[in-house]
Amino acid sequence: MTDDTRNPLWGGRFAGGPAEAFQRFGHSLDADIKLWREDIQGSKAHARMLAAQGIISEAERDALLSGLDQVASEIEAGTFGWSEALEDVHMNVEARLREIAPKAAGKLHTGRSRNDQVATDLRLWVRASLDRCAEAVRECQRAFLHQAESGHDALMPGFTHLQIAQPVTYAHHCLAYVEMLERDRKRLLSAREHLNESPLGAAALGGTPHPIDRDMTAKELGFDRPMANSLDAASARDFCLEAVGAASICGVTLSRYAEEVVLFSSAPFSYWQCSESFSTGSSIMPQKRNPDAAELIRAKVGRLTGAFNALTLQTKGLALAYAKDMQETKPVTMEALDQLEATLLITAGMVREMTINRARMAEDANAGYATATDLADSLAKDGIPFRDAHHIVGALVALCEEKGCTLSEAPEAEAQAISPLLTRDRLAGLTPEASVQGKLSYGGPAFTRQQADRWTKALG
Amino acid sequence: MTDDTRNPLWGGRFAGGPAEAFQRFGHSLDADIKLWREDIQGSKAHARMLAAQGIISEAERDALLSGLDQVASEIEAGTFGWSEALEDVHMNVEARLREIAPKAAGKLHTGRSRNDQVATDLRLWVRASLDRCAEAVRECQRAFLHQAESGHDALMPGFTHLQIAQPVTYAHHCLAYVEMLERDRKRLLSAREHLNESPLGAAALGGTPHPIDRDMTAKELGFDRPMANSLDAASARDFCLEAVGAASICGVTLSRYAEEVVLFSSAPFSYWQCSESFSTGSSIMPQKRNPDAAELIRAKVGRLTGAFNALTLQTKGLALAYAKDMQETKPVTMEALDQLEATLLITAGMVREMTINRARMAEDANAGYATATDLADSLAKDGIPFRDAHHIVGALVALCEEKGCTLSEAPEAEAQAISPLLTRDRLAGLTPEASVQGKLSYGGPAFTRQQADRWTKALG
Amino acid sequence: MTDDTRNPLWGGRFAGGPAEAFQRFGHSLDADIKLWREDIQGSKAHARMLAAQGIISEAERDALLSGLDQVASEIEAGTFGWSEALEDVHMNVEARLREIAPKAAGKLHTGRSRNDQVATDLRLWVRASLDRCAEAVRECQRAFLHQAESGHDALMPGFTHLQIAQPVTYAHHCLAYVEMLERDRKRLLSAREHLNESPLGAAALGGTPHPIDRDMTAKELGFDRPMANSLDAASARDFCLEAVGAASICGVTLSRYAEEVVLFSSAPFSYWQCSESFSTGSSIMPQKRNPDAAELIRAKVGRLTGAFNALTLQTKGLALAYAKDMQETKPVTMEALDQLEATLLITAGMVREMTINRARMAEDANAGYATATDLADSLAKDGIPFRDAHHIVGALVALCEEKGCTLSEAPEAEAQAISPLLTRDRLAGLTPEASVQGKLSYGGPAFTRQQADRWTKALG
Amino acid sequence: MTDDTRNPLWGGRFAGGPAEAFQRFGHSLDADIKLWREDIQGSKAHARMLAAQGIISEAERDALLSGLDQVASEIEAGTFGWSEALEDVHMNVEARLREIAPKAAGKLHTGRSRNDQVATDLRLWVRASLDRCAEAVRECQRAFLHQAESGHDALMPGFTHLQIAQPVTYAHHCLAYVEMLERDRKRLLSAREHLNESPLGAAALGGTPHPIDRDMTAKELGFDRPMANSLDAASARDFCLEAVGAASICGVTLSRYAEEVVLFSSAPFSYWQCSESFSTGSSIMPQKRNPDAAELIRAKVGRLTGAFNALTLQTKGLALAYAKDMQETKPVTMEALDQLEATLLITAGMVREMTINRARMAEDANAGYATATDLADSLAKDGIPFRDAHHIVGALVALCEEKGCTLSEAPEAEAQAISPLLTRDRLAGLTPEASVQGKLSYGGPAFTRQQADRWTKALG
Repeated sequence: MTDDTRNPLWGGRFAGGPAEAFQRFGHSLDADIKLWREDIQGSKAHARMLAAQGIISEAERDALLSGLDQVASEIEAGTFGWSEALEDVHMNVEARLREIAPKAAGKLHTGRSRNDQVATDLRLWVRASLDRCAEAVRECQRAFLHQAESGHDALMPGFTHLQIAQPVTYAHHCLAYVEMLERDRKRLLSAREHLNESPLGAAALGGTPHPIDRDMTAKELGFDRPMANSLDAASARDFCLEAVGAASICGVTLSRYAEEVVLFSSAPFSYWQCSESFSTGSSIMPQKRNPDAAELIRAKVGRLTGAFNALTLQTKGLALAYAKDMQETKPVTMEALDQLEATLLITAGMVREMTINRARMAEDANAGYATATDLADSLAKDGIPFRDAHHIVGALVALCEEKGCTLSEAPEAEAQAISPLLTRDRLAGLTPEASVQGKLSYGGPAFTRQQADRWTKALG
Repeated sequence: MTDDTRNPLWGGRFAGGPAEAFQRFGHSLDADIKLWREDIQGSKAHARMLAAQGIISEAERDALLSGLDQVASEIEAGTFGWSEALEDVHMNVEARLREIAPKAAGKLHTGRSRNDQVATDLRLWVRASLDRCAEAVRECQRAFLHQAESGHDALMPGFTHLQIAQPVTYAHHCLAYVEMLERDRKRLLSAREHLNESPLGAAALGGTPHPIDRDMTAKELGFDRPMANSLDAASARDFCLEAVGAASICGVTLSRYAEEVVLFSSAPFSYWQCSESFSTGSSIMPQKRNPDAAELIRAKVGRLTGAFNALTLQTKGLALAYAKDMQETKPVTMEALDQLEATLLITAGMVREMTINRARMAEDANAGYATATDLADSLAKDGIPFRDAHHIVGALVALCEEKGCTLSEAPEAEAQAISPLLTRDRLAGLTPEASVQGKLSYGGPAFTRQQADRWTKALG
Repeated sequence: MTDDTRNPLWGGRFAGGPAEAFQRFGHSLDADIKLWREDIQGSKAHARMLAAQGIISEAERDALLSGLDQVASEIEAGTFGWSEALEDVHMNVEARLREIAPKAAGKLHTGRSRNDQVATDLRLWVRASLDRCAEAVRECQRAFLHQAESGHDALMPGFTHLQIAQPVTYAHHCLAYVEMLERDRKRLLSAREHLNESPLGAAALGGTPHPIDRDMTAKELGFDRPMANSLDAASARDFCLEAVGAASICGVTLSRYAEEVVLFSSAPFSYWQCSESFSTGSSIMPQKRNPDAAELIRAKVGRLTGAFNALTLQTKGLALAYAKDMQETKPVTMEALDQLEATLLITAGMVREMTINRARMAEDANAGYATATDLADSLAKDGIPFRDAHHIVGALVALCEEKGCTLSEAPEAEAQAISPLLTRDRLAGLTPEASVQGKLSYGGPAFTRQQADRWTKALG
Repeated sequence: MTDDTRNPLWGGRFAGGPAEAFQRFGHSLDADIKLWREDIQGSKAHARMLAAQGIISEAERDALLSGLDQVASEIEAGTFGWSEALEDVHMNVEARLREIAPKAAGKLHTGRSRNDQVATDLRLWVRASLDRCAEAVRECQRAFLHQAESGHDALMPGFTHLQIAQPVTYAHHCLAYVEMLERDRKRLLSAREHLNESPLGAAALGGTPHPIDRDMTAKELGFDRPMANSLDAASARDFCLEAVGAASICGVTLSRYAEEVVLFSSAPFSYWQCSESFSTGSSIMPQKRNPDAAELIRAKVGRLTGAFNALTLQTKGLALAYAKDMQETKPVTMEALDQLEATLLITAGMVREMTINRARMAEDANAGYATATDLADSLAKDGIPFRDAHHIVGALVALCEEKGCTLSEAPEAEAQAISPLLTRDRLAGLTPEASVQGKLSYGGPAFTRQQADRWTKALG
């Protein structure tokens, strides 16, 4: 899509004729140029297998391997002459290989077609991308763990409905994200595991009469096994959907944290502040930090879920085996996974450099009668039925609201009038610190030291 | 997203530091470089207004106008030095203008901020894109009309559930798409109409104390009026959703036709054939034509609806006014609309060059007792209650199935035994030609001549 | 989907056999029972036309009309015996009509089939729903206008990136939503306009040989005209996509306001408070109000956009004409539009009863040096180039930050040292009130009186 | 959403007042009534743990357990009095329990809140649903395997671009779906595995000071372990996204097969025919079978992916911990999974009863020079470079096309003129049977016997 779409191509004729217009429409080089490494890797594995099976000679194999290495060098060096007319990365590599090793190149397609070649390349690329993304998730987890450690005892209000509900700690909050990200990571790795079968050798759709060894190429390319049905191998794109689906769910996780960053760095909250590296400023207000990185992270789930939708629409109702529709899955999948990886890395950086305002968080951890539930729990421990306990606490809260004081500051006489159980000692204990320290149940705020230690070991 | 994302950036440090990593993440130049024309157009309108209102001098205005023209020339000529460090197209243009006209350039932002500038540019771009798309829809309609005319009397089976149901004509079928596309066009133009208000002068979000004339800039830029609320002007992106939503629905229309092309050019159907320009062949089977263009068209709705989803996710729950999340709407919107335009043009070309196999279509128009309903209608016209008519026809169909003949070939005696109304004459009239000619109701197959003539006038 | 899906139906046999399992899967009565009014309305129009054209007798017409009225009465009265075995609402109505008026009922399907009948009913339903939604949007607009009037002069900070940026007013903020909703309303009405053509008389797909008058039925049913192509009429569902697409965009608008409600009613903001009617409380904290209504409103865009996606997937690649896939569009479309209507009404109620904390909003309208831009504008008005103005203001902000004071409280001597233009008078004028009153440009905060008056007239 | 939404509720007042309107809007009973079993199951586990920890007495525990059993009996028996005013299933159960065991009921919420209770119930429900879906996938696989066995040697054309490409077998085709479904099943089970942690005891968000034993309840409820962070436990809904994402991908698989059913049962193909149980007929054409089941299956992916989108929108950007938005995830998740289960079961039934037309498939397996690639492969085996082989075969195809014959019928002399390698023997061997038998590579059509045997063992 370049500026030339502004020209009125529809004036009876396409510039360059319909064939050229269609060629431009149909080529996929922009997208699949990223597949060049995998294309060469797959071809080398295929060449070695062909020789091992006696289908080509050792000399032919060597010509192919050194020719493919040369192509790789040229691409690395930026001297490779990409041609859009050759439509995709596979044809570009093949054409150049023909120039370098004309005789051998013609035999490379024995027992292989474009369909299984493309499927192999894409699986290899997605697999590597998932590995990078999983590692980037780890980096985010490490950053959250770093925050949890550096602000371990910092109080923070816990919210329901964005209303202050109970005191927790900053560490507790950060470790929630470590857990969430762990499930995201598991999903990425499940996607990796499910895709790790080799389509190579399925040929166009129906296998080949040549005596190829699909186990050998599968093994060399790091696949667990060859795919067991050639029609399936040539036409499966569920691995793209699963990878992008997992990316999309991870995008939701990141959007939740990003929302909190935007929110908690807003002046009325002033809990957190992004570092300068991940903010933009204002020429006029030097102290200002706009949380641009967080906002971009928050928005990224859009493209990820959009990609998932695109893939379902592209592959819905496709009769077996290969259809050209599948070409459209390549750019969508690859762009989505690249976006996820970049977003994870930026998130990791942003989290690691986050600074917190302990005083503001502690202040709000005590606001809104956040320890009222603790008081009810304390009464319940003394045998007061839950409903009665709620009634007593409600009356006390109403009193404190009238007096403009916190629960622990409630006037003793009037508290006693509500219930003799509302002793000075009991009320004095209603601090956020005590609340947090009392939540000893597994997974609660008093459990975070143990949780952090476990993650420190796990994350290395 | 280039290959460098393969590097392990997460190894404790970003290459170039976090600031650089974030800059790369946050820049939008790749996407918004397409906005340069609109950016300059908007700035020129703003400069003229500033001078008309006495906010800048005429000399300053002239310096700005000629400076902006020079920038445009440099971009057109390919000599403009784009800088990613300058983040977006607006900053790039501004920086160059400062070099050309340093004194005046500083005043161009009087009464304007980046927020309303970006919103203006994007509206102008989307508006122009919608115009191009609407014109491309017209071109598709013309191509379908051309087909309708060239195959006007060609019989074709009409399907329900992809089962042959009743005879129609090829013209009738093609004209259905002209109607469908007309609604697509209306939606694109409604989106255009609804967006055509000027945000320019809303400034960052709260207007400006400078005595600007927003009506003047709105008028110069072809907007119907200035937007009436500056908070809204700075933060509205519903126009992107509406445009892409309309594109998505149009994508569904195109996918339906594309599916038919794939289907009807499959050997068992052999109704239609794509021209060589819009097919790919096989080196081994010279006669083969793979309907690649149709398959790509069919898949395109994926990216269009994916874009709609992305936009809803990106803009869901954004507090007023501007948030950086909105930057992500630019590439999504622009890519989707560019894709639609290209898809429409390819569709127009493919349709125009489609050839049909009249014999095969006519054969199937008579298959599957496709005129059974005509017989029932004919009996109903003679006063037979519908349920009885169905019963009689069902018995005749069963007879013909047993005999392996068509309805019009049914043996007279046995037909008469079913009902004396099944006369030789009545049965002989059950041809697809007669069926089609008898469907005189408005919108039916006998109405297509009139419908085609109306469209011929409308499409010019 | 009832609890019986828990039974292991897959144990070799379906309960009741496969035919019954499929019948349950295929029936649509749950969803389309809502169509009964439209079904009867359409049948009455068809009956009148058949008589007017002499296809049925006046006596038959009268039998049909009174029979259909009786069916309607029975449904209204709750005495109608719905049968799932009869699959859909159309068959249920028809079966009962046959009992009431056996002779005439058989003729009602002359020149009509289930396909055009369903298409007609659904268009009528969607049209009525869009009208209700458009009116519900109006009610939201009135509620926002009410808020704008009651808090007309209340100051409020305007945000970018959720950072306090410039002072605006509460009225200005509320009126932004009136504008946004106006575009939502236009989209709903455009969808209504584009769908308002009658498919009735298209029959199964290919029209009919009976001399029906499609203009007459179109007119009686309030359609602008009959659809011009019977294949299109039987298979078009783009009107569902357009209606739900518009609903989805409206859902985004509502989610933005709902987010603000959640945010601004959080304790650190404390700008707004929902009424008890639209909140839930806590037995333990009587003063607490959870903004549940706002959270549900915020989430609703999920189902709306989900419905849009569902519809694109359902209709993608459907060959003409009718396919059973289209049945799935009914529940999706109808549920989405019902959800939008309910969400709009709840939003209207919630907005109308919102109360604001003027003091907190005014406090923040002056926080974060929100008038710094005003100072720069003021310097620019006196001829200081923008860049220099920014430099001066930046230095002053730094000074104020050091001193812990607002701009208007800046110590005169030190301000003068930065620039002699920073006079006591100029600084004293930097109040949020003055800022707001100075933003006289069209659409700015000083323009809201005029904007509110215009809307008061328009909304009646 | 009932008919009463037709009433003009916006006329200044809600019927019943805003509070009632909001209650109707906010209640979730319709959706979560399906959770009653899980709700009681979770409460019983919690009661047992409270007693084991000495928090309640054994008598209280027994009162709770028998009370909950009584509630279950009443629900099963249909005598339970559901109340919409009580908002959700949890409150309904609790209210009835209070009537049955008033004293003990008050203690059931010790160390538990509604937030972790709802999260527990939903996880239990989704887990059970995934198990049912995985088993339903198995049933589909068995049905495909049954088809593969019963039509093991039936020839069938393999397609690329829906163009006949190479001969395969019907078994090969069916087994492709067994493989595809196996990955779908793995995804459903991965989702199950990832969700199988217990949120119970996380309380509102911050754990509890009561000495609860979360391991005990986790174990009793079949969870692998308690969730390690209470904030996460209360607010995670990623398990819904993963389950529905997996369902959506499975929906794509089913849509592909359903498309083939529609296609291959169309008259021009006539390869397959649905049984009467899964078709609908025509009163007028007794032999007609409309593949309604297949069309509905094809469309179902719409609602599944729509649900995934809905969930991403609903949970995007939600600050921790619980927010009411999450209530909206319940109906979306549950409806989607119920739809998938039903769709799988219908697919299994439809597949099992499919009949095939061997003659038509065999005919097309030999059409379109489907064995041309075999000839090229055969020449390549004899050392002819691939490119030359293609050239020779292309010339022969052109010859056959001119003569109107198949490759094996090519006139010997003219074939020899193209290349002496085109011997009578070589050409005579170009049958689809030979082609299929020669494709011995792993995963190819000659491999299906082995593949089918493996699946017979695996599927039991």
